[in-house]
Amino acid sequence: MKALFHPASVVVIGASDSQTNLGKEIVRNLLEFKYQGKLYLVGNEGGVLYGRPVCQSLDDVDSPVDLAVILTPAKTVPGIMHQCGQKGIKRLIIESGGFGESGEEGGHLGEELVDIAKQYDMRFIGPNCIGIINSLNGLATPFAPLRGLFPRGNVGIISQSGGVALWLLYMFDGEHLGISKFATVGNKLSIGENDLLEYYMDDPQTEIICIYLESIEDGRRFIETAKRSTKPILVHKANTGSLSSVIAQSHTEAVVNDDSVVDAALRQAGMVRFTDFLDCMDFVKVMQLPAMKGKNLAIVSRSGGHAVIGADAAHAHGFDLPPFNKAFVQAIGQHFRAKVIKVGNPLDLGDLYDFDVYLRIMEDLIRESTIDGILFLHTYLRGTESEPSRRLLQSLSDLSRECGKPVAVCLCTDHRELVRFREEIDLPCFTTPERALKALGGAIAYERRRAAISTSGRALKRPPDMDVQSIQSVIGRCLAEGRSPLLHESLHIIEAAGVPIPSHTVVTDPEVDTKPSTIPIPYAAKIISDEVSHKSDTGGVILGLTGPEQLRRACAQLFELFRPSARGVLVQTMVPRKPGSYELIIGGKRDPHFGPMVMLGHGGVFVETFGKVSLRMAPVSEGDVDEMIEELPGSELIEGVRGLKPIDREELKESVVRVSALMTRFPEIHTMEINPAIVSADGIQAVDARIFLG
Amino acid sequence: MKALFHPASVVVIGASDSQTNLGKEIVRNLLEFKYQGKLYLVGNEGGVLYGRPVCQSLDDVDSPVDLAVILTPAKTVPGIMHQCGQKGIKRLIIESGGFGESGEEGGHLGEELVDIAKQYDMRFIGPNCIGIINSLNGLATPFAPLRGLFPRGNVGIISQSGGVALWLLYMFDGEHLGISKFATVGNKLSIGENDLLEYYMDDPQTEIICIYLESIEDGRRFIETAKRSTKPILVHKANTGSLSSVIAQSHTEAVVNDDSVVDAALRQAGMVRFTDFLDCMDFVKVMQLPAMKGKNLAIVSRSGGHAVIGADAAHAHGFDLPPFNKAFVQAIGQHFRAKVIKVGNPLDLGDLYDFDVYLRIMEDLIRESTIDGILFLHTYLRGTESEPSRRLLQSLSDLSRECGKPVAVCLCTDHRELVRFREEIDLPCFTTPERALKALGGAIAYERRRAAISTSGRALKRPPDMDVQSIQSVIGRCLAEGRSPLLHESLHIIEAAGVPIPSHTVVTDPEVDTKPSTIPIPYAAKIISDEVSHKSDTGGVILGLTGPEQLRRACAQLFELFRPSARGVLVQTMVPRKPGSYELIIGGKRDPHFGPMVMLGHGGVFVETFGKVSLRMAPVSEGDVDEMIEELPGSELIEGVRGLKPIDREELKESVVRVSALMTRFPEIHTMEINPAIVSADGIQAVDARIFLG
Repeated sequence: MKALFHPASVVVIGASDSQTNLGKEIVRNLLEFKYQGKLYLVGNEGGVLYGRPVCQSLDDVDSPVDLAVILTPAKTVPGIMHQCGQKGIKRLIIESGGFGESGEEGGHLGEELVDIAKQYDMRFIGPNCIGIINSLNGLATPFAPLRGLFPRGNVGIISQSGGVALWLLYMFDGEHLGISKFATVGNKLSIGENDLLEYYMDDPQTEIICIYLESIEDGRRFIETAKRSTKPILVHKANTGSLSSVIAQSHTEAVVNDDSVVDAALRQAGMVRFTDFLDCMDFVKVMQLPAMKGKNLAIVSRSGGHAVIGADAAHAHGFDLPPFNKAFVQAIGQHFRAKVIKVGNPLDLGDLYDFDVYLRIMEDLIRESTIDGILFLHTYLRGTESEPSRRLLQSLSDLSRECGKPVAVCLCTDHRELVRFREEIDLPCFTTPERALKALGGAIAYERRRAAISTSGRALKRPPDMDVQSIQSVIGRCLAEGRSPLLHESLHIIEAAGVPIPSHTVVTDPEVDTKPSTIPIPYAAKIISDEVSHKSDTGGVILGLTGPEQLRRACAQLFELFRPSARGVLVQTMVPRKPGSYELIIGGKRDPHFGPMVMLGHGGVFVETFGKVSLRMAPVSEGDVDEMIEELPGSELIEGVRGLKPIDREELKESVVRVSALMTRFPEIHTMEINPAIVSADGIQAVDARIFLG
Repeated sequence: MKALFHPASVVVIGASDSQTNLGKEIVRNLLEFKYQGKLYLVGNEGGVLYGRPVCQSLDDVDSPVDLAVILTPAKTVPGIMHQCGQKGIKRLIIESGGFGESGEEGGHLGEELVDIAKQYDMRFIGPNCIGIINSLNGLATPFAPLRGLFPRGNVGIISQSGGVALWLLYMFDGEHLGISKFATVGNKLSIGENDLLEYYMDDPQTEIICIYLESIEDGRRFIETAKRSTKPILVHKANTGSLSSVIAQSHTEAVVNDDSVVDAALRQAGMVRFTDFLDCMDFVKVMQLPAMKGKNLAIVSRSGGHAVIGADAAHAHGFDLPPFNKAFVQAIGQHFRAKVIKVGNPLDLGDLYDFDVYLRIMEDLIRESTIDGILFLHTYLRGTESEPSRRLLQSLSDLSRECGKPVAVCLCTDHRELVRFREEIDLPCFTTPERALKALGGAIAYERRRAAISTSGRALKRPPDMDVQSIQSVIGRCLAEGRSPLLHESLHIIEAAGVPIPSHTVVTDPEVDTKPSTIPIPYAAKIISDEVSHKSDTGGVILGLTGPEQLRRACAQLFELFRPSARGVLVQTMVPRKPGSYELIIGGKRDPHFGPMVMLGHGGVFVETFGKVSLRMAPVSEGDVDEMIEELPGSELIEGVRGLKPIDREELKESVVRVSALMTRFPEIHTMEINPAIVSADGIQAVDARIFLG
């Protein structure tokens, strides 16, 4: 990556002085951002561009070149790549469109690029992108005019879309927040988000990473990489709804991800997902401030109404507003002229107009050990208070840094003043108290989540032991016969993986073997057939059988009903459903991009009603499952309500860990589902299970 | 109200040329906003202010005056009011602070103002406010300097806080949205939000009403008024969390409302509640566009990435993106230069750079009968495209008005360009596609809700009949004895109100009368005692009794256990709990500000787990109850899941209507609760009930 962002020399291929030429803008950006290396231009028409000679061919460039930026018609790109390879150029940025995003023919052309890159051991960004920016050395390759506008800062941008990346630039610029690195990956045929993420994680200029993606191909690497990051990673994963897949495909050749999988995986890795860029902006602003160590906030406001709104927002986002200590209150009280204001937290500055006093108050406050941060709600109209306001806020910025506590500022003033403030003062400015505290709360939650992820206690101590041989033999038999496991085989696999199942037997001839004397009554009889998927909806389950004759008749009836596909009847002791026992679903699936996943959800009637399930990438640890349980809607239910005993949570956690281990250990399993698993204070029982190989 | 907003003459009392005088700013605002009436100034020091004479006393003003604006120390206000009264001034704005918000003494002073106003038949705004603005005649009384900045428009503002009202002005101004009227009510001792709301509803300049409140005293009038409004009413009701009540009290003397009541009542009246002012801004922007008649949206974007994000947002907010018809697609296709873009909805304009073609495309689109509105995602950087962009967007604004369909525009450009755009173009500009479609979707939902409220079918055809005499007699007896109804009395009231209850009898001596032969077994025996509130937690309920001897023993046991407070035992047939039957709570309470309320929620274990209940102001109609049911989390449960029969919804609705009628008819009832009401396909049974008078 270093070769890409720090080339000593760059050649722009496809530049000319003609009016519609876009390569020209690349050259202009490199000049306006004062690129510090050597710059060569190549274009069919030759001539001169911005006072520099344009070579008609790459062969005419005598010196060695580190990086080539290509913006020529798609069909010319393979030839140019060969030329680059022969010249020893190892890094390319291909901005041209017309590859996989445009259809089949373009797709073949894209494959050709990949082959050529392999041949010469080259790596490239794109195609179908606007390249990269390195704010440190002025390398700026977008073909969109940027006018050298954007300030240097600590945000690293990775975007699949050039347009969206530019928009982020504009938005950051509007708040006067700067960037460190910027990269658009387009169809990402060679370098993708994973390479860039790894690079940004090590890049000293980058402190926050902001990613826009329309597809994630190697989700597992993405997540494993992100888990190691000590820098916050903000992700907007678009292309989630049914309305966007076609346009995303034709935009960046994007595949569709299962969004519930993406969402769970991002959370698991401690990334911060957002869908609205304003939320992203606010988070980046908070990240410019020192981290808030606790939830004790002081609110200082020039307007009583803002103080009320701020206090409501503090409540909504989980902050405390500790009372100020007596000595402080007395000291403050003396500053108030008409003394009609009661000193408290929030502190309404009321009819106190002295900005020096404001600063002293906040200086005292921020040094209080009981205060972790300040929300300052400042109101003024451009005029005599403009200059004092700017001085005050710059002092607050310094104070915040010195004390290592955040001072979040909401400015309530006219928009012309806001623009000036943002350009002149080195302190982010929030739009509303609500948004400021939402972001501040989000940052605290992020820090806690990161800490939890990096705690070694999160790791599973050892992989759960299971009867691997027995599982392998069932799977082997099924694969040989080209089918998935039958009901009793699925239960067998589950049991071999260490999940408890009810005692049972398999009846293959009702006239001979229906006396399961070792199995407690009542029984459930369930048809075993590879043609039946919803047994209970089709009469394949008979419940509440209490004697051998009843059982015999039930088995005979099932064989009759499901002839000829009946392969047997599973006779199972019924697990009692009683107050304090709950039906859950534990499942597993294999995602094409994120690999094995494990799922926990409500079963029974709840699965339809409270459909939200909790997903994680497998394998999971007990700590992960704790979080999964808490994510379930109504998770308090299983914690014991109304005097009922809580469920055996450890047993539940172990079963989920075991299902996740099963998914990880046996890639032959495509999906699986224990439904229901009945959990209660007495433990867990997997009553029914289905496993599909694939 | 007209006298307040349209005075032919104004006197500002408390104005002087001294540096710290705030009254001076009122005068300056009146001059800068070019107030069209006559202006007189009064101040102890006399002299000249802005070239106008300042009288030392109101008596020195010779001419009659319509409106007095007072900003003098609190203790001087009563005397000034007397002077005003004697001079025949009927409308006052009292901006001075130091009344109820400052403590007890100030509270008495406030009461004095109310008395004086009565004496002279005067009405006043405030105290403790910044007055009003009428953009039509230049009446602008805030003591904060406004520099005559704010544009005229269609938004009417009512705010309890002056600071928040100013902030709204700044925010509207930042988006170049104008106001019609502006009023801050402060401690609202005379004129409050209800008077202003009524006035704004009739005011031809006001098309949208935007309200900030920290307390609602006469909630019932507020809601009844709002229900009649044909204009959208946006409400920020602050002072909701436990952290804000103290500051709100000392800010505007605000009482605390029950926020769940406020929330339900606002919804019931069709008002739009928001907690973040950015949401308010976006809604006001949408209201500047023609209303969208359906959910069929066309997205047109200059960037593929924005198109993807727009399509995701459309999906999230319930829009459809219908495909374009063939002829249209072919016509469009010809405009694309390199033809690498597939024409679809969203439409990515790709490498098409001709703004005239953009306009033609959108003109064709907006005239399509299958399209209800357009989201245009426009990207450009200040420079050669600035001027064409402004022309294009002005044309789109005209087009939108002409066709009566909204064109919502998101501008993705640098912030200097955004500022210019807002100042020059008569079209609101959204920040992100997500926010634009959230607001557009919110406006559609608002219109539907308004339509539902105004449909006559919402009204109850006739009040449900009930045995009023019987209820009155029980209530009378309880009141006479200074207690609330006992268990059997509560059930009696419920039954008399027309809600079915299980058959039962009351046992007062277990040795004599425990043979309830007419009541089907099994029985439940429940203690009747005025000291027991949670019967089942204290052993006061014995279930599953099947024979007379069992029953006798149970009754004896209950009498023994609850001696001496036992007043009897209620013997009740048990309502079967079976699949498809659900426990609900139907309740009523009397809110000090909103009056009688009716409540519906889950019962049993669900009440803790899915605690959200649905509330409405009583009386409710069947249509209201339909909405209440749909608001319950997991309401699908009771609609029949997994092949179970749905509950008898009509019976449930009728019972809720009857409880609401009971609350309305009998003001003696303070709170009541039927818990549980068991509902199933067979109907409803009120199994247990408590009623508190007071």
